[in-house]
Amino acid sequence: MGAEQKMTMKPFGELTPRIKALEIIDSHIKPIEGTEKVPIGDSNGRVLAEEVVAGFDVPPFPRASMDGYAVKAKDTEGATEENPLVLKLIGVQHTGGVFHGTVNDGECLEIATGAPMPAGADAVVMVEYTRKDGEKVLIERPVVPSRNMAEAGDDMKTGTHVLSEGETITPGVIGALAALGYIEVEVYRKPRVAIYSSGPEIAPQGQALKPGQIYDINSYTLATVIEANGGIAVVCGIVEDTVESIKESLSTASGHDLWVVSGGSSVGTKDLFSEVMEEMGTVYFHGVKTKPGKPTLFGEVDGTPMFGMPGYPTSCLNNSYVYLMPALRKMARLEAKHWVKVKLPMGHEMISKSDREQFITVRIEEGRAYRVYKQSGDITSMTHADGFIILPIGTNKADEGEVVEVTLLHV
Amino acid sequence: MGAEQKMTMKPFGELTPRIKALEIIDSHIKPIEGTEKVPIGDSNGRVLAEEVVAGFDVPPFPRASMDGYAVKAKDTEGATEENPLVLKLIGVQHTGGVFHGTVNDGECLEIATGAPMPAGADAVVMVEYTRKDGEKVLIERPVVPSRNMAEAGDDMKTGTHVLSEGETITPGVIGALAALGYIEVEVYRKPRVAIYSSGPEIAPQGQALKPGQIYDINSYTLATVIEANGGIAVVCGIVEDTVESIKESLSTASGHDLWVVSGGSSVGTKDLFSEVMEEMGTVYFHGVKTKPGKPTLFGEVDGTPMFGMPGYPTSCLNNSYVYLMPALRKMARLEAKHWVKVKLPMGHEMISKSDREQFITVRIEEGRAYRVYKQSGDITSMTHADGFIILPIGTNKADEGEVVEVTLLHV
Repeated sequence: MGAEQKMTMKPFGELTPRIKALEIIDSHIKPIEGTEKVPIGDSNGRVLAEEVVAGFDVPPFPRASMDGYAVKAKDTEGATEENPLVLKLIGVQHTGGVFHGTVNDGECLEIATGAPMPAGADAVVMVEYTRKDGEKVLIERPVVPSRNMAEAGDDMKTGTHVLSEGETITPGVIGALAALGYIEVEVYRKPRVAIYSSGPEIAPQGQALKPGQIYDINSYTLATVIEANGGIAVVCGIVEDTVESIKESLSTASGHDLWVVSGGSSVGTKDLFSEVMEEMGTVYFHGVKTKPGKPTLFGEVDGTPMFGMPGYPTSCLNNSYVYLMPALRKMARLEAKHWVKVKLPMGHEMISKSDREQFITVRIEEGRAYRVYKQSGDITSMTHADGFIILPIGTNKADEGEVVEVTLLHV
Repeated sequence: MGAEQKMTMKPFGELTPRIKALEIIDSHIKPIEGTEKVPIGDSNGRVLAEEVVAGFDVPPFPRASMDGYAVKAKDTEGATEENPLVLKLIGVQHTGGVFHGTVNDGECLEIATGAPMPAGADAVVMVEYTRKDGEKVLIERPVVPSRNMAEAGDDMKTGTHVLSEGETITPGVIGALAALGYIEVEVYRKPRVAIYSSGPEIAPQGQALKPGQIYDINSYTLATVIEANGGIAVVCGIVEDTVESIKESLSTASGHDLWVVSGGSSVGTKDLFSEVMEEMGTVYFHGVKTKPGKPTLFGEVDGTPMFGMPGYPTSCLNNSYVYLMPALRKMARLEAKHWVKVKLPMGHEMISKSDREQFITVRIEEGRAYRVYKQSGDITSMTHADGFIILPIGTNKADEGEVVEVTLLHV
């Protein structure tokens, strides 16, 4: 055995329950302070880093909100279909132009939706309630002042608050920015997340597998979850299982906002990561009381929070939803992920024993939940899952027909 | 009046109810047939255009799924903490390598999670249930064959179906593709959508507004909704209100999968679009029985489906959710949008009279829904909305405290 004697294959210490782990993570994650300008057309889903105040009235002028005739409202009093009132047509107001005349008593102006209201008029009669006869217009219904028109600034008034710093940008927000003439908008920059895979068995795609090797899965699934939750994934490659290689990878932490490695946080003899992490930084917890994904680690190196994710692909992806996503979204100033949950009966009896809280992937078929029966090493247990059920500690089964809460993964 | 006499400011004909309009749209929209290859890391949310069959076993070899000792299961029968069985340690199997010896009767091999199982062994005893004493290992619990290990192909077997053409790609799907060594994957291409704004009052951002002008809002909101629903937004600019300019814009339809204009589909005298559309193609409906957004048009030019959206920003954005999104998602082969709906009491009495089905935007505050009181021309009625309520035809109010269904816009 010789050289192997130095190895210490030791079990995990006390496992950290999920809620406690999330509290620890939360206490060490700070929202990004840096900002950048982006074109408003690229800003959907970003977070506003500036307050937006209306620089001018929107609309900038009083305008018709219906096609019809701009009138003095008092001139329409008492109009009916049987006894229409007659107004003199003085012209036409298209959108985009300005009519320079004034609507006087007994007069009207043909006007299109969105066109500026002419001086003198205070309401619009919809075209549906009129008849045109040469230069006369027969008004068949009365209107009150301000009817079928908007005042300047009805949407946004000059100087008023429109959007708050910290708001997440939506299509409706982009619409308001566009209305105010914005071309670019100041947003918080996205957290840059370094992603490493570790383990001598991990091979990059594009080369043939040698005996004992498997392809890198976790770099891809982590990058996907990170990009979908407001981060920039910086895929850094595969770390060798040597102290030097691990130190080199950890030394990049300070250049990123978050640092993630998968694999290397189990208790195998060659799992050096946690030792080097302890040496170079601080490990806040190592080992969580959830299944799959026990070998999950959280700490800090050079002021950058770091996650050690499980090497098993399903465990890694599961815990990227459970632990990494909340951290990243807080950092990116996004609201907590809105998981959609549905209550469904189990399609069969399911027994799963563990002293940890369990995340069990399920398919949904004809309104019933069926376990995706796979081991935690099997990525297809996530590939074919519609969602997951959480079994709390102490619960090891669900009966056929029992109503369970399924958290949907893909809506 | 002179030249103005040719104009016909006519009301809409019969309005098409929403369900009927959606049926008409659906009958003219075909899913995209073209495909393209994309890197798997960029494929999240795309739609698979190929079946994926496992080209090799995953895992490619039998492997340990726990840290511990590879054994012959029969050698552990009867082992207890008080009376452990003793096995001879013949070496160590790290991940990434291959142990070339064989585990014979009475022997064991130290093995790490994910490492290939050695010849002769058929189970793994977890390290937690062992003690090491030099070259002896004390086994404190029995295992049955196959315990704590996976066979080659347990996740995916060579030649078996893994993913179907038409599946939407998720992080779990990307994981399966990565496991199978994919670098790129064949997906359906995204529909290219031409976006025009029309109306002489529309000015591009970046230039000062002239009297009677407003900035282009709809190009931005339409592009955002299109990009968020599987399309490529091709913003084509502002169309002038002339027959030539409209014809020129419509002539680009055949170069796109879908063609959208906002404005120009109302009944104003200068709204020439529908006439030119009728001339150059087919209009299937013009005018929908929903509020806001009555002046919505759907047709076809040169085989390309086309939408005429309302010019009013809120109406345009509302109807891009209601009418355009379902068409685009079908074209992009994505599932129907999963709207999250919540039931909440109204925070106040709300009266809104219309003979059309009404979409009413609301804010949610302390668990109650409050109408965003704005006119349909006001983009901020969408900017500040958390969701909308649908009032069916014939319903013109909701009482304070009445439980209404709110469709959430931003989850």
